[in-house]
Amino acid sequence: MLNFIQNIKEKNPMIHCITNYVTINDVANILIACGASPIMSDYSKECEELTSISDGLVINLGNIYPDVVEAMKISLKSANTNNIVSVFDPVAIGATKPRKKIAFELLKEGKFSVIRGNISEIKNLVGLNTKSKGVDASKSDAKDSLEDKVEIAKTLSRNTGSVVVISGAKDIITNGDISYICENGDEMMKNITGSGCILTALIAAFIASNNNILEATLMAVITSGVAGEFAKNMLNNRGNLTFRENFIDEIFLMNDDKISKFAKFYEI
Amino acid sequence: MLNFIQNIKEKNPMIHCITNYVTINDVANILIACGASPIMSDYSKECEELTSISDGLVINLGNIYPDVVEAMKISLKSANTNNIVSVFDPVAIGATKPRKKIAFELLKEGKFSVIRGNISEIKNLVGLNTKSKGVDASKSDAKDSLEDKVEIAKTLSRNTGSVVVISGAKDIITNGDISYICENGDEMMKNITGSGCILTALIAAFIASNNNILEATLMAVITSGVAGEFAKNMLNNRGNLTFRENFIDEIFLMNDDKISKFAKFYEI
Amino acid sequence: MLNFIQNIKEKNPMIHCITNYVTINDVANILIACGASPIMSDYSKECEELTSISDGLVINLGNIYPDVVEAMKISLKSANTNNIVSVFDPVAIGATKPRKKIAFELLKEGKFSVIRGNISEIKNLVGLNTKSKGVDASKSDAKDSLEDKVEIAKTLSRNTGSVVVISGAKDIITNGDISYICENGDEMMKNITGSGCILTALIAAFIASNNNILEATLMAVITSGVAGEFAKNMLNNRGNLTFRENFIDEIFLMNDDKISKFAKFYEI
Repeated sequence: MLNFIQNIKEKNPMIHCITNYVTINDVANILIACGASPIMSDYSKECEELTSISDGLVINLGNIYPDVVEAMKISLKSANTNNIVSVFDPVAIGATKPRKKIAFELLKEGKFSVIRGNISEIKNLVGLNTKSKGVDASKSDAKDSLEDKVEIAKTLSRNTGSVVVISGAKDIITNGDISYICENGDEMMKNITGSGCILTALIAAFIASNNNILEATLMAVITSGVAGEFAKNMLNNRGNLTFRENFIDEIFLMNDDKISKFAKFYEI
Repeated sequence: MLNFIQNIKEKNPMIHCITNYVTINDVANILIACGASPIMSDYSKECEELTSISDGLVINLGNIYPDVVEAMKISLKSANTNNIVSVFDPVAIGATKPRKKIAFELLKEGKFSVIRGNISEIKNLVGLNTKSKGVDASKSDAKDSLEDKVEIAKTLSRNTGSVVVISGAKDIITNGDISYICENGDEMMKNITGSGCILTALIAAFIASNNNILEATLMAVITSGVAGEFAKNMLNNRGNLTFRENFIDEIFLMNDDKISKFAKFYEI
Repeated sequence: MLNFIQNIKEKNPMIHCITNYVTINDVANILIACGASPIMSDYSKECEELTSISDGLVINLGNIYPDVVEAMKISLKSANTNNIVSVFDPVAIGATKPRKKIAFELLKEGKFSVIRGNISEIKNLVGLNTKSKGVDASKSDAKDSLEDKVEIAKTLSRNTGSVVVISGAKDIITNGDISYICENGDEMMKNITGSGCILTALIAAFIASNNNILEATLMAVITSGVAGEFAKNMLNNRGNLTFRENFIDEIFLMNDDKISKFAKFYEI
């Protein structure tokens, strides 16, 4: 019997998010939907305090103003010092030099429990040559073989000590040693802004409420995928905004039984 | 015959909001929904001008960058000078020292027509010992007796000269002398981010269009609660995003007859 | 046979948006809905890079922090240098002096492919005396005759070399020489925040994927109007949030056949 979601609802973890303004509302609502309590702040002078009273930290690279970057560094340090779990989302890291620089500074200064990105973002983090198209994975990167992608994820995991997630048609979850492939999800998830940001926040709620970080991360990925499948089933020929509403609704309505029943994953 | 909503729709008051980026879109849409016209800006150099041509001001403490705080002070002064109504929402004031400091500075430098918060936020403003959990009221504070909460609201009202609203399972509205309890609302309102921010904005629209600030504030609280009940009735087993959509829709569809018919409140 | 939408879906243009935080999520989702790929950033130090790898640029005056204004100028220059199409939305330009000043600086320093605003905003840009009410057109300006409005649009077009769009009950689209009136659309579009911002972004996607800027702009305006009509038909007595969802959904579901069938426009 799984109890990942039940644990979130019982603990009601507070998740401090430093995230972009495009999807900040969706991220807050998804955290509430799964049973967590969001607190959003990127003001550096309150971030040490905020992170220290939180149960988990999300750092999303979508907004890289200098004071926000300062906030990221302060919060990451606070999380590391206080043994608070943390998730890093290197949004569009390949698009500009400042993003890449900041990402590497964060990885150098602290440690994340989990790093989640698309294949282009993760390739950038392991120093591979790649060209992403803004916030999306490039088509050429997406065509890399599953085996190659798993190796890239493992490399980043070994380099950083973080569990690494590569989101894509098939999601990869690895701690450098054990690796899983998750086959849940739906194509429509690419048609809303923020499905990556949302998953990153979900992972934070899952690992803040469950002990095994690798398994909790896997379950967060599965949960997002299953919710995407349900949301598609309810779509009724409507468009991407209805899908977004359905998706967050389905996270709200999710439980451990549904996850057990619909999970599609295997160890690789 | 009530005519609170009708008055908003006839006046179409412009409400200047300095508010957080998490729920800024919901706040703008709720103002349109009730018949007001939102203008959102937190850039200090245009805030005196903006507030002076507005019919009401919302200051929400969700975003406390230095320039935004400067904007808050300038706008509050402009509102006070020009006899423009104003509402203060001390979001998460108990979570960090900078928020608390800024809140007290604002209360010292100017006067708000209305202050609205949850019990933990309001306890902080009257100097009572409390510990909120991020943006939510703490469980121990929520267990305070209704009578104690009314006294706290009255104290803040007398200290500040503002009408005070404490949001909760039962809402308290007081001008320090006359106090009301509103029993409208639904548990689902806790499951979306921003139901507090939304109510704060609604209050601004109501007091900008109706003369009696205490009564207009009470009616705004009732309206929000009734809309929450309707939104729940339409929920049809869906999740929190559908509830959010229903809620704002119901404000759009609200009228004074519905408020008369479904209001549940009493003087205490 | 039209193929404007098909061209967007085939090219999948990346649109760099410097836009306000109120409707930034809607703008991102509308771009995805029509087949484009949004990248939102207003951080000056990455904007030259971002614009240079984009297929189109949106500058929306909703957020005028100094660094954001710097980003606007850098991105506009990058767009002009690299022959990247650009759209300007002078949001609430009449509301405050800083907005007006920045708008004129932008028009002086660079050139936009398209400028889109309501009648009050466009009158401000041609130096006519007017008073807008925050983000909305003033009632007196809205009563100007259609012929007068067309002349104002033509004047701005000749002054700037941009295609100019005046949004209203009847939309005007002109390159200073050829002018169109579009009669599609629905009153409900005024009841959501951001229908202007959304149209501005749509125009960017259309002109980034189709050669004739005047025609592509006209088609974007028609597409928005037709989607508004469909969204209203699906409204089923619900409110403005349902309308917003329907509207973005209908853009997602739009195709060139629907546009051909439902377009209502004429040359004037």
